[in-house]
Amino acid sequence: MSIQKTLQRILQMIKERDTNLQEFFATLHPSDFAEIVADLTDEEKKELFALLSDEEAALVIQEMEEIDQVVLFQLLSKQRASAILKEMSTDDAADLISELPAKDAKELLTLIEEDAEEIRVLLKYPEESAGGIMTTEFIAFPGAMLVEEAIRRLREIATEAETVYYVYVVDEETRLSGVLSLRELISAADGTKLSEIMRRNVISVPAEMDQEEVAKIVSKYDLLAVPVVDNRQRLLGIITVDDILDVVEQEATEDLYRRIGATEIEHVNLMEAPVASIIAKRLPWLIITLFAGLVSGSIVGAFAEAIQTVVVLAMFIPVIMDMGGNSATQASTVFVRGVAVGEIKKEEQLRYFFREARVGLTMGAVCGLTVGLAAALWQQLPVLGLVVGAAMFATVTVGTVVGTLVPLFFNRTGIDPAYGSGPLVTSIKDATGLLIYFSIASIFMRYLT
Amino acid sequence: MSIQKTLQRILQMIKERDTNLQEFFATLHPSDFAEIVADLTDEEKKELFALLSDEEAALVIQEMEEIDQVVLFQLLSKQRASAILKEMSTDDAADLISELPAKDAKELLTLIEEDAEEIRVLLKYPEESAGGIMTTEFIAFPGAMLVEEAIRRLREIATEAETVYYVYVVDEETRLSGVLSLRELISAADGTKLSEIMRRNVISVPAEMDQEEVAKIVSKYDLLAVPVVDNRQRLLGIITVDDILDVVEQEATEDLYRRIGATEIEHVNLMEAPVASIIAKRLPWLIITLFAGLVSGSIVGAFAEAIQTVVVLAMFIPVIMDMGGNSATQASTVFVRGVAVGEIKKEEQLRYFFREARVGLTMGAVCGLTVGLAAALWQQLPVLGLVVGAAMFATVTVGTVVGTLVPLFFNRTGIDPAYGSGPLVTSIKDATGLLIYFSIASIFMRYLT
Repeated sequence: MSIQKTLQRILQMIKERDTNLQEFFATLHPSDFAEIVADLTDEEKKELFALLSDEEAALVIQEMEEIDQVVLFQLLSKQRASAILKEMSTDDAADLISELPAKDAKELLTLIEEDAEEIRVLLKYPEESAGGIMTTEFIAFPGAMLVEEAIRRLREIATEAETVYYVYVVDEETRLSGVLSLRELISAADGTKLSEIMRRNVISVPAEMDQEEVAKIVSKYDLLAVPVVDNRQRLLGIITVDDILDVVEQEATEDLYRRIGATEIEHVNLMEAPVASIIAKRLPWLIITLFAGLVSGSIVGAFAEAIQTVVVLAMFIPVIMDMGGNSATQASTVFVRGVAVGEIKKEEQLRYFFREARVGLTMGAVCGLTVGLAAALWQQLPVLGLVVGAAMFATVTVGTVVGTLVPLFFNRTGIDPAYGSGPLVTSIKDATGLLIYFSIASIFMRYLT
Repeated sequence: MSIQKTLQRILQMIKERDTNLQEFFATLHPSDFAEIVADLTDEEKKELFALLSDEEAALVIQEMEEIDQVVLFQLLSKQRASAILKEMSTDDAADLISELPAKDAKELLTLIEEDAEEIRVLLKYPEESAGGIMTTEFIAFPGAMLVEEAIRRLREIATEAETVYYVYVVDEETRLSGVLSLRELISAADGTKLSEIMRRNVISVPAEMDQEEVAKIVSKYDLLAVPVVDNRQRLLGIITVDDILDVVEQEATEDLYRRIGATEIEHVNLMEAPVASIIAKRLPWLIITLFAGLVSGSIVGAFAEAIQTVVVLAMFIPVIMDMGGNSATQASTVFVRGVAVGEIKKEEQLRYFFREARVGLTMGAVCGLTVGLAAALWQQLPVLGLVVGAAMFATVTVGTVVGTLVPLFFNRTGIDPAYGSGPLVTSIKDATGLLIYFSIASIFMRYLT
């Protein structure tokens, strides 16, 4: 059944106060359920959630967009909201609390009592750090525990933990000493101690690590979850692979947005964000581009006399600008992506730069020859072909080099190189391209008239 | 220990034929091992792999880049290569075989005998389809099996299957009838039949589905693995979440590359691809841009007389071009990403377009006022301010609208909308921006002189 049809059927059932409603929900995945909720009116949402148990409500809310979660929570009584919060996993609960108005957040934290401490701890970490995305619901056993005892305990607590697929082994001070996958555990012989079969070489991440780094590690080692530790190796929480998938998507979006200058429109659905907030994110970069464009214009202005004498020179302004821009964008995109996916390592950047320089020189030569020939034939003026061709060669080469150098420099100084693909590179390549073009034209001026 | 140091130590050990070498490898994760191998010479690779068992070699090779796998396989004897292939998971083995020269592939498939059939089946599916990335190593039991029997069987076969975290329940004709997570299985009471506790609402994907769609489903439902079925619902294989992480990264790279016109440089490491092949991918799009730039130039040429009379008009060519380009890129980036992550649904596209039109009109008005004021003050010519301001308003609005419409049109006709962010949009907005600018200028010509 399509989402649309399901929605219509639910609306009908709500209207008729149909008692089969709850049964019907049980057949829906929480994720599909969450999509339907997003399309309901506030009144309908209220009626719907009144029919759900706290646990069911928690499962659905965890799958909703953060902005929708906040809206929904403000429709519920504080009593109900806190009961649902208790059923949510601690990482999702902490994320939601951090988005609520401070007053509501404080009140809810008081109401949920025993779980509040864990959530307060999670709220201390930056949102995009390992600590900020971890959950505290993991399974840790002492090394002396026997395999059969561990399996028995697992069968009891399996429904509470975020993932049962890794069992962590800790010492008396909760320091991480080993790990066992559930698969290793169930295939081990009874009577064995966990410490005898655990892997001691545990891959873990510090709580301060950026989520993008965490994603790289999980992806590299094909983990289902990675443990998060403090600086004394004490186990604080775990990050599961489903959250890592979200991180990878989120980071890809951020990279793309940085490339167009728009700072991230974080945690806000594109269709729901007010138009004014979208403009506020994008307009500043257009204004910067505008003034950079005027700087390029003043370069054209400096050669006004030349243009007035040989007006045909103005005709090649667009192609010089386009080509400088396109070659710079190509170069920066490939470099930024190469760094992001780990194909270009820090120690290889210089070598990469020289490869790009060769690419730029070759492409510059081909484009220069092409446009030079085209210009000479089009305007029946061989010297013009020489001027435009030489300028094109220089522009494409410089574009490729600058397009690589700016993000490379950003990367070295710790700025996200994705910013380097945007308006800044555009401005630099425009100004240099036009300067090269008109300087060459000036030199050959007397042959052009 | 850093990769560099580990590498040096290994080289030293190989040279001295140190017998501790194998023990040393056991402490390394296959993924780190694979990174080190990439930096060795052919001779060193041979010596190293001679020291590894087939199973160890398989684990390491699975973590290597495809291009490195192919190189290594050509260093090994066919006998050894086939022994290692047998130890690899079927999806990785099939991927590797598909990259080998046809003659080698055929010979190896003969040598591996019983596993060859499974690999041949996998090779039939397109590389980027669900069938192309699935593995045939899954666990499927009949519904009549008891929980304790299933756990006992699992403990025996845990080391062979790709993932033991889902147990699929199939009927006599291997049609998928239900699923149980390992967590549900171990927390179920003994004496229960699998069919009594399995979930019947299994999320599965058809073998022909594009890998990007599969990734969306796995991400949406937070799955650790998704079953792949044929059109009669028979279970063919599974796709695990670690492969999905690779898909998400690969698709993000492809999208980025399409935006710059460069067709994907697939399965080739940036640092290892020959410079000529990189140029071959990027140059064609530069040449297209070049001719589009000449078209824009001919528009400038059509107004040559106006420029010669009021040369100051040429000074605003760069800012008009830059702003049209930047607003179009912003619009297309946000739209393409919104569609890719599912924030803009098919039925919402028209509504999204009208939102963008409002964004474009507002940003156009602000930019028009700004540049108009700047132009009037800079050149002390109020009419020039009017002309440039009006042209800017129109250019930014049209840029935003075209930047949304082109990828939207692509999306509707089944072309990847990412292509719409590239050279095509650039060319359209350049030509329109300049045409608008000079048309307005022509109208006001007599006030400008």
